[in-house]
Amino acid sequence: MKFKKILTIGLSESSLSADYWKKIDALASKRISLAKEDSNIKTQLKDTDCLLVNPFAFKVEKEHIDAAHGLKYIGVISTAYGKVDYNYAATKNIAVCNIPGYSTEAVAELAFGVVLEHIRELERAKRQVKAGDYSESTFFNTSEIMSKKFGILGLGKIGSRVAELAKAFGADVYYWSKNRKKEQEDKGIKYVEVEKLLSMCDFISLHLAFTNDTRSFINDARIKKIKHGAMLLNLAPNELVDFEALDKRLSNGDIWYIADHTDEMTPEQIKLLSKHKNCILYPPIGYTTKEATIAKQEIFVSNIEGFIKGNPINKVN
Amino acid sequence: MKFKKILTIGLSESSLSADYWKKIDALASKRISLAKEDSNIKTQLKDTDCLLVNPFAFKVEKEHIDAAHGLKYIGVISTAYGKVDYNYAATKNIAVCNIPGYSTEAVAELAFGVVLEHIRELERAKRQVKAGDYSESTFFNTSEIMSKKFGILGLGKIGSRVAELAKAFGADVYYWSKNRKKEQEDKGIKYVEVEKLLSMCDFISLHLAFTNDTRSFINDARIKKIKHGAMLLNLAPNELVDFEALDKRLSNGDIWYIADHTDEMTPEQIKLLSKHKNCILYPPIGYTTKEATIAKQEIFVSNIEGFIKGNPINKVN
Repeated sequence: MKFKKILTIGLSESSLSADYWKKIDALASKRISLAKEDSNIKTQLKDTDCLLVNPFAFKVEKEHIDAAHGLKYIGVISTAYGKVDYNYAATKNIAVCNIPGYSTEAVAELAFGVVLEHIRELERAKRQVKAGDYSESTFFNTSEIMSKKFGILGLGKIGSRVAELAKAFGADVYYWSKNRKKEQEDKGIKYVEVEKLLSMCDFISLHLAFTNDTRSFINDARIKKIKHGAMLLNLAPNELVDFEALDKRLSNGDIWYIADHTDEMTPEQIKLLSKHKNCILYPPIGYTTKEATIAKQEIFVSNIEGFIKGNPINKVN
Repeated sequence: MKFKKILTIGLSESSLSADYWKKIDALASKRISLAKEDSNIKTQLKDTDCLLVNPFAFKVEKEHIDAAHGLKYIGVISTAYGKVDYNYAATKNIAVCNIPGYSTEAVAELAFGVVLEHIRELERAKRQVKAGDYSESTFFNTSEIMSKKFGILGLGKIGSRVAELAKAFGADVYYWSKNRKKEQEDKGIKYVEVEKLLSMCDFISLHLAFTNDTRSFINDARIKKIKHGAMLLNLAPNELVDFEALDKRLSNGDIWYIADHTDEMTPEQIKLLSKHKNCILYPPIGYTTKEATIAKQEIFVSNIEGFIKGNPINKVN
């Protein structure tokens, strides 16, 4: 089997390397690539049997699925697939496949990178040497991960890996997740209620998926519970955190907030948070390693190949 | 038992917190504190039975030991004790005690801090956000520790802990050490010859003690063997590396050197290395965590108390 027509929306040529585009092109008679704002999307969808989409650029809604009479497959080039109406797609027997786990290691390593960068004051240390000062005298307020309480909210793939690494660093690791994870508890990762975790942990790392249930999960009441001196680390979606409440707590100067999804913050949100010295913002560099980029493309293309061969993988619906 | 006179050389009041000075003062009838360049050192040594010394400020040589007729104890406020003539001290029945291991965790965590800071380009990422650019588009050349070859030269306390953490990060871990370490090999840390390690590893971390045998251990021939693209990490003494040979290799632009003992580099050495963009220098912040500072003082004072009670601990001679 081969697709008649692959339509891509919101993907650029640089979204995949030439090798992977070649593999994709071998799976269909033709490929049309549209930008997210193209007015021809619905017309082009009519005879599309394979839709490849970047869900951060384009939401696949009922109307699009209805417009695509012959659609069999939707390939989502991300782990998150909430912006594709996958339940409705299922009613039309359209497979939706995502790319789970490709950035697990990249994000987990970044978590410890930004934690250590902060608690050892690495930026300031480098800058000081460049300015000709080689003394350690102002670095005696730095600290270690060892023996600290490290809390994970959301013990999925990434949360579990962060928990494992925190344990390797000698931290006392706690978690809360919607479901208890026996196999993690057997490794010494201890379950506690959300509020308890927030009030006792020195490091709090968010690894929840963003759903209607988790919007503003870290709300005003919970932000108030965060331990004095703690670091709240958010390499997960911004929507998990109530920014107005966070702004208030950051004003107290007694917690740190480190996050990387600045690309999805509004100018107002950036302004609100970046005024705080105890807020450290990064670009979304959690998933950008060479290794994750290769894995992402590999899985994205394997998904399409698997579907064609009748062995769908990473099907979410 | 109590000492008659404690003499400190090269220690400042801030070397220990007030609590620990109090504990020390309880162990002697009096305490005299001298700067390293004080001309009265030999005179003061005459009736000293307990000498506390910062070996980075002051070398304790035969002549000092000979001048101190009643000396029983030399407390070294560091892990390194090579600058105290401990063998000669032993012939006079003088105990020399050091502070082993107090900074193991601090140094090992720093190793991963500076590695991740570098491979994820954290400084540039933070700076970019401050400049109002939230795009990850220039961070796709970053990389992970997972699955890389991580080499450790010197598998003592710190080297072993770095090896353990590298393993937790999913690296393929190799070591060379003067003696084979069976218990580490059982954990999957693989022994290889120095040259082999240098030529195959992506990360090479130095954890050798500085002795006459290890001066310029990383010499010209070995520097030439380092894998193209590798990172040489030196949180150990500068003397382990031949800086002129390193300068030549850094000029090729195909390896990275990250080190933290800039305080012990000469202005010429700083000039030689800091001109390279692929050389990242830090102040000596490996041991400066709050946790290590407390452990250091605790062990330093416990050593003196142990000796007085007839149970010397951390005696090196």
